[in-house]
Amino acid sequence: MPFDFRSLLRPNLPAASPAPFSGYPEFYFVGGNNDADSIPRKKLGEIAKSVLEREGGSLASYGIGHGPQGYGPLRTFIADKLEKRAGLKCSVDEILVTSGSLQALDLINNLFIEPGDTVIAEAACYGGAVSRLKKLGTNVVGVDLDEDGMCMDHLRSILGDLKQKGIRPKFIYTIPTVQNPSGSVLTLERRKELLEIANSYAVPIFEDDCYADLLWDGERPPAIRALDNTGSVIYCGSFSKSIAPGFRVGYLVADWSIIGQVLPTKTDGGTGALEQMVLAEYATTDFDQHVSELSAVLKDKCQTMADALEEQFGTAAEFTLPKGGIFIWITLPDQVDTSLLAQIALREGVAINPGAEWVVNPETGKHRLRLCFASPSKDQIRDGVKRLAEICHRETGIPMRGGNTTRAKL
Amino acid sequence: MPFDFRSLLRPNLPAASPAPFSGYPEFYFVGGNNDADSIPRKKLGEIAKSVLEREGGSLASYGIGHGPQGYGPLRTFIADKLEKRAGLKCSVDEILVTSGSLQALDLINNLFIEPGDTVIAEAACYGGAVSRLKKLGTNVVGVDLDEDGMCMDHLRSILGDLKQKGIRPKFIYTIPTVQNPSGSVLTLERRKELLEIANSYAVPIFEDDCYADLLWDGERPPAIRALDNTGSVIYCGSFSKSIAPGFRVGYLVADWSIIGQVLPTKTDGGTGALEQMVLAEYATTDFDQHVSELSAVLKDKCQTMADALEEQFGTAAEFTLPKGGIFIWITLPDQVDTSLLAQIALREGVAINPGAEWVVNPETGKHRLRLCFASPSKDQIRDGVKRLAEICHRETGIPMRGGNTTRAKL
Repeated sequence: MPFDFRSLLRPNLPAASPAPFSGYPEFYFVGGNNDADSIPRKKLGEIAKSVLEREGGSLASYGIGHGPQGYGPLRTFIADKLEKRAGLKCSVDEILVTSGSLQALDLINNLFIEPGDTVIAEAACYGGAVSRLKKLGTNVVGVDLDEDGMCMDHLRSILGDLKQKGIRPKFIYTIPTVQNPSGSVLTLERRKELLEIANSYAVPIFEDDCYADLLWDGERPPAIRALDNTGSVIYCGSFSKSIAPGFRVGYLVADWSIIGQVLPTKTDGGTGALEQMVLAEYATTDFDQHVSELSAVLKDKCQTMADALEEQFGTAAEFTLPKGGIFIWITLPDQVDTSLLAQIALREGVAINPGAEWVVNPETGKHRLRLCFASPSKDQIRDGVKRLAEICHRETGIPMRGGNTTRAKL
Repeated sequence: MPFDFRSLLRPNLPAASPAPFSGYPEFYFVGGNNDADSIPRKKLGEIAKSVLEREGGSLASYGIGHGPQGYGPLRTFIADKLEKRAGLKCSVDEILVTSGSLQALDLINNLFIEPGDTVIAEAACYGGAVSRLKKLGTNVVGVDLDEDGMCMDHLRSILGDLKQKGIRPKFIYTIPTVQNPSGSVLTLERRKELLEIANSYAVPIFEDDCYADLLWDGERPPAIRALDNTGSVIYCGSFSKSIAPGFRVGYLVADWSIIGQVLPTKTDGGTGALEQMVLAEYATTDFDQHVSELSAVLKDKCQTMADALEEQFGTAAEFTLPKGGIFIWITLPDQVDTSLLAQIALREGVAINPGAEWVVNPETGKHRLRLCFASPSKDQIRDGVKRLAEICHRETGIPMRGGNTTRAKL
């Protein structure tokens, strides 16, 4: 008889996985997967061979002899890249290499958050960040977004209200450049205003810049951290979007008062060393060229998805073209419940992110959805959006018009 | 003026790191670092090149298209290796690849432990396991060890006492094969007895087999999990000791009832993919030969350290030669406080693990220490043990005899 673990498990665990992974659905429009053809496999392979032959012996040490903050040459590259692309000057001692930016989120949450704490975030926001905060018992307060990012008047009013209640939020979490999911870029003026407001309430900012290297529309404003001279901004980024999610390499940038406090809480024995070594050597020579080519591929796929949405959903699908990145944030008419749609569509081979999972207040995401376009081929984008429209029409009567035909209203 | 984060930080954080890493001390006898010359760099480099050219495109996906349990060929190798070397049959669906076995510990602790829970462990036990449990508010109860591993009479009496108090421990954590730090191997008879006792109290076992592939003295008994047919044993292992800690690849083996429950709690976006791909291909052809050669190197270094201890500490240092692995567990006379010794020695370039950090009840480790021999050269082992003896003599009068001279008693 199998051992019964149930009475020993901690309460409030998430629902168990029903079965082992059996492959992706036919049309996979969720998650951060990227364009497989854009992975520079040959070059990465050559570099891996040369770096292993040269420095492979260091794999015998935790931290490959570079200490707990990560491989030195990678931190040097990150510092150079941030200065050049984000106007952000930092020393290698202010950089901590992490296992993806997800670990950066976990480390910072762990430093600040106790149950009952308050965090401010964009009203529509990366699902993994919101779910992490809520799991820790955080009260997440959402700030309205428009096409220029977080709305400063709303932020000011939220902070004022909280202060009246005696609440000082632990931080303002923001994705200012290619916001997830809206694809917007916070203007320079708003960045300065954000800093001013945050400092006046003595609230730090946690700036997540994961997608910023994949901006194709307009100039990249300086990072918020670059505009601050008090160290109040903790910054994180990643190579998951710009090079490969499979590498699991991200980074945290902050003053030593934060990095030094994070280090003893990062008890994972270090981030994958081979991947740091390969990335450092590849990125130092090829990063700019690579992200420029990758951005062009993504922009093209983004347009393909926008065209498919236009053709299949017509005016029923409202969206603003993102300024970079890998997703489109779509609003459908009020009567469509995208959580229900996502369940039905998945059974028919189309995976989508229902809006309720990508907003701070689930109710506001009910008729929204996020579609990722980086990983599927252009044919898959066209066919998958078509199938999604058909399912949506069958289930909700929306879109009324699509596929170049006028569908009967149910 | 720098932003003041102090009032925002969560209470009870560990002490901050005082300064960035500035290199290892001259004699580094702590941690799981391994023999650098034994890393098969050339072969790993060739494999990395070939696997990246062949499958590098899959790095564009989280989980490289193999789902959240890890790269398929690596899980196949792990299953084959466990059957062959540990008599443990498992399917690839019962294996979860983790970022080192440290993540396996975190995942299992997170599944079971709430503050106030009880866990049973060997009285002298891996410091990272004990510190993790204590940080979670666990009451860790230590079982006496002898040269054949955990003492079954003591375990029986502990479980009986706990039951009388109405306490059912969450699990028995054990390192049965090359126990850390004692280097002992739990006999087959005791493995069977352990299972019988644990099952009679309905307490699961968490078997940590990290060092088992580096056994050089005697035959490897079957894993405890291999002797059980109820699924009550959760098993973990690692490539950190057998191939390279820098890779950060370990594995958890359990029935699906546990694996399926762990999966939604592993929110790290997967374990490093390049490292899994390289390891899978390397290990499938070279694992046995590699660990056999590495074990011979380690055995030789172990003997060098034993000889140096004999020469420098004489009868003051009591230890049993380990049956494999990378460390020796040493008892000094009662009047030596190894926590103090470790602080002083570190300032003079010798890093050691004080016993208090490697036992369940710190008091019992006060005059013990753990010395790791895998990473330093044989000259470093000889010179470092000599320096340690000199420092120890100067500070405590012990060893009275050493360095082939009779030291004056203080």
